[in-house]
Amino acid sequence: MSRITCPELSKKTVTAEEAARHIDNGQRVAMSGFTGSGYPKAVPGAVAARAQVAHDRGEDFRVELWTGASTAPELDGVLAEANAVSKRLPFQSDPAMRASINSGDTAYVDTHLSHSAQQAWFGFYGNLDVAVVEVAAILPNGLLVPGSSVGNSKTWLDLADKVILEVNDWHPRGYEGFHDVYYGTRRPPERLPIQLLEPMQRIGDPYLRVDPSKVVAVVETNAPDRNLPFKPADEDSKAIASHLVDFLRHEIAAERLPPELLPLQSGVGNVANAVMGNLADSEFEGLTAYTEVIQDGMLDLIDSGKLTSVSATAFSLSAERAADFNDRIESYKGRILLRTQEMSNHPEAIRRLGVIAINGMVESDIYGNVNSTHVTGSSIINGIGGSGDFARNAYLNFFVSNSQAKAGAISAIVPFASHIDHTEHDTQIIVTEQGLADLRGLPPVARARKIIDSCAHPDYRDRLTDYLERAIAANPTGRHTPHILAEALSWHEKFMTTGHM
Amino acid sequence: MSRITCPELSKKTVTAEEAARHIDNGQRVAMSGFTGSGYPKAVPGAVAARAQVAHDRGEDFRVELWTGASTAPELDGVLAEANAVSKRLPFQSDPAMRASINSGDTAYVDTHLSHSAQQAWFGFYGNLDVAVVEVAAILPNGLLVPGSSVGNSKTWLDLADKVILEVNDWHPRGYEGFHDVYYGTRRPPERLPIQLLEPMQRIGDPYLRVDPSKVVAVVETNAPDRNLPFKPADEDSKAIASHLVDFLRHEIAAERLPPELLPLQSGVGNVANAVMGNLADSEFEGLTAYTEVIQDGMLDLIDSGKLTSVSATAFSLSAERAADFNDRIESYKGRILLRTQEMSNHPEAIRRLGVIAINGMVESDIYGNVNSTHVTGSSIINGIGGSGDFARNAYLNFFVSNSQAKAGAISAIVPFASHIDHTEHDTQIIVTEQGLADLRGLPPVARARKIIDSCAHPDYRDRLTDYLERAIAANPTGRHTPHILAEALSWHEKFMTTGHM
Repeated sequence: MSRITCPELSKKTVTAEEAARHIDNGQRVAMSGFTGSGYPKAVPGAVAARAQVAHDRGEDFRVELWTGASTAPELDGVLAEANAVSKRLPFQSDPAMRASINSGDTAYVDTHLSHSAQQAWFGFYGNLDVAVVEVAAILPNGLLVPGSSVGNSKTWLDLADKVILEVNDWHPRGYEGFHDVYYGTRRPPERLPIQLLEPMQRIGDPYLRVDPSKVVAVVETNAPDRNLPFKPADEDSKAIASHLVDFLRHEIAAERLPPELLPLQSGVGNVANAVMGNLADSEFEGLTAYTEVIQDGMLDLIDSGKLTSVSATAFSLSAERAADFNDRIESYKGRILLRTQEMSNHPEAIRRLGVIAINGMVESDIYGNVNSTHVTGSSIINGIGGSGDFARNAYLNFFVSNSQAKAGAISAIVPFASHIDHTEHDTQIIVTEQGLADLRGLPPVARARKIIDSCAHPDYRDRLTDYLERAIAANPTGRHTPHILAEALSWHEKFMTTGHM
Repeated sequence: MSRITCPELSKKTVTAEEAARHIDNGQRVAMSGFTGSGYPKAVPGAVAARAQVAHDRGEDFRVELWTGASTAPELDGVLAEANAVSKRLPFQSDPAMRASINSGDTAYVDTHLSHSAQQAWFGFYGNLDVAVVEVAAILPNGLLVPGSSVGNSKTWLDLADKVILEVNDWHPRGYEGFHDVYYGTRRPPERLPIQLLEPMQRIGDPYLRVDPSKVVAVVETNAPDRNLPFKPADEDSKAIASHLVDFLRHEIAAERLPPELLPLQSGVGNVANAVMGNLADSEFEGLTAYTEVIQDGMLDLIDSGKLTSVSATAFSLSAERAADFNDRIESYKGRILLRTQEMSNHPEAIRRLGVIAINGMVESDIYGNVNSTHVTGSSIINGIGGSGDFARNAYLNFFVSNSQAKAGAISAIVPFASHIDHTEHDTQIIVTEQGLADLRGLPPVARARKIIDSCAHPDYRDRLTDYLERAIAANPTGRHTPHILAEALSWHEKFMTTGHM
């Protein structure tokens, strides 16, 4: 049976190439998609082809590209390779797009993921010309059943002058009922409290709405999400997870956490999966999650019975786990709710629920200022994503990393971070495979001693302590956050010139 | 008539010296006070005297000192001069305390002002031994009428094992009815939405509560707050205010702000007063404020009829304006509400109300990473205060500064900030007397060009542009946020060695 059961929209069905003709040079185009899930699979390629033809003729063809978060080669990849993106926001992780940003060809606006929808609505980014949104089905009344992500789709559908829908029947039809799209958002001064009290509470609709008169094309697809291979947790990730989970036990013993913890948030990556794996093998029961992304490890934790429910905005699964989920989707109903990223990452919800936030980092300086986004100050990797939304408003926040990278050539603990995304005022707990530094209630110099002693790799520990002690000695009237500015960034400079910090 | 009309508490009236005997070496002591308002005037001096006697005998006597925010010479000053403070949080601005922190004698934990009460309650700072809270009156039933600030007093009274009250009849008795103390706070997972919809809405009680059995002493005082002289706005402050207010007009014209604006927040200082002065002479009507601190300029704006209502947590007035306010307090009733700092600075309220946040800065780097707290990386000035609470969650945020300091020896726009409190992800609009840079929706390099061209002093503009262009050239694969790390902090180094950037 067709996934498009609305007569008015069904008759707008066209090919991706026909749909792409609605997207012109210089336009602002917003697409669905979050961590490689629920992004349009066909139209972006057709837009890239149009751009290529135009460029071959010597004509301009570039668009601004807004999404939920990262997408996939079929979206960011093809458009970046066609040099078809003038500006990108609010997050990306595609190699071709990253290269285009770092070469200066694409302008990248790296925003907190809870900010992008509202700032677009406020008019801070200009008028939105076209939205391209992937869904799992269109109901007879024109309501849309989202697929594996919600992201910013609600806002893009609301704001765009024209809408193109992709209906992808790779997504199970059973996705209906997995979403909670909050339609209570307003612009100040009309805003109201978000009446969310626990992670699984429904405060919105199970469907996305679209004004059918704005829909200019509907495209049918059958294509999988970007499902990356699952890598089993390595020893370092397991060690980080073990330090972190032991610390949670310590906080329960100190009566600063209840036995069932508080809702978990976990960034994307192996450490996140390792933490879920550690919890799956633990004594914990009745866990919940209020997070951005559901990875393999979190589904395993649901299967184990230890995680009762998860609120997120998207999946990010391995191909095997996605196939399994799609087969058994009904068994997860009522345990998983996908919200708009404005709600999954909302400061109001995160602070109220008391989320335990776990996010990766590139490096931390000795005082706990964290770099989540840049290599040696200049090159962007991905973006800040939701780490700022969660870290600032969490009950507890953890920043995790291996203590070294590139076989020891890089220390994740440095005298001065080459870019700062999370300041000393926000970061609470740093964890590497070496150990855990609980920085709560500590002044900068005590933070430094703890980070160096607990988290730095032994190969770098003495040099970090030496820097700290000399900085203290060199600043008799600057011992709050002592630095030697002439040396502060020298570790990064040395890496750039010698290949080793 | 006595201000202490509760028999049970009245009989605990003692001298400050007697009260101070309840405070011992090694204890955690929390005091009221916010921006030099509503802090205890007598007991801190008596504690400092005890410490001095102990130190003269060769004995240890130091306490941890928690407050709302900055206090005054009679509190931070005397305790710092007696070397009686081992750790200080969450904010200070006293010269003696600052010196003690920068010499390494006092450990300082510089936290977001919306975080301190909850983190103390969560147990992140340890058990609170004694609270010393100034009030304007004690009612027959033991309820407390706060004076010129609320700050963290509610939480300190709740958490402390012992309570000392100072009843200061310098505060008008008419303060009753000016406060809104929210008693709906809970710890996660029991938290509820804060049902605040507009700045003047009452969601709490007009009184502070205290368990009378915990009150070990009541001290009567008659002493003014730290009321600093009002300095008329200088030409640079007026220019900054003019750029900022013109920009608000521009946003109204673009329909991104309503004609009556959104609730204003304004940090402490001359620019804040100048902005209020500019608004007082403007066409604006029906303004509101949701802020931390009420300065002279805001009272003038109320008097002008343009500002209908102000929610804050404290006053910070000149001596003349404080005397005038105290005389005419009844005329302000219903137009001013003082809340706990947890509520005045609450991310949930700030984002919902859509606050327009205006805060000072020490420096901004070319990409809009802002330093609000440190000189040349190492020495703390005051602290982050509420600037992070407001900037992150505001509808619009402004960071303001003169483009130069020390007669041109220092540029407020630098290649790389020597400390970062607000990251590129958060800062929207930078203003100096030179002009205004609207950074919304811009990538880093475009932000840099705008900040340099609009905000930097002409004496530094060419060197900043030169740095930017060379950084772009030097980083063919790092043109997102191009830096030359070997030079990035060289302006600060040059200032430290030559006295001029």
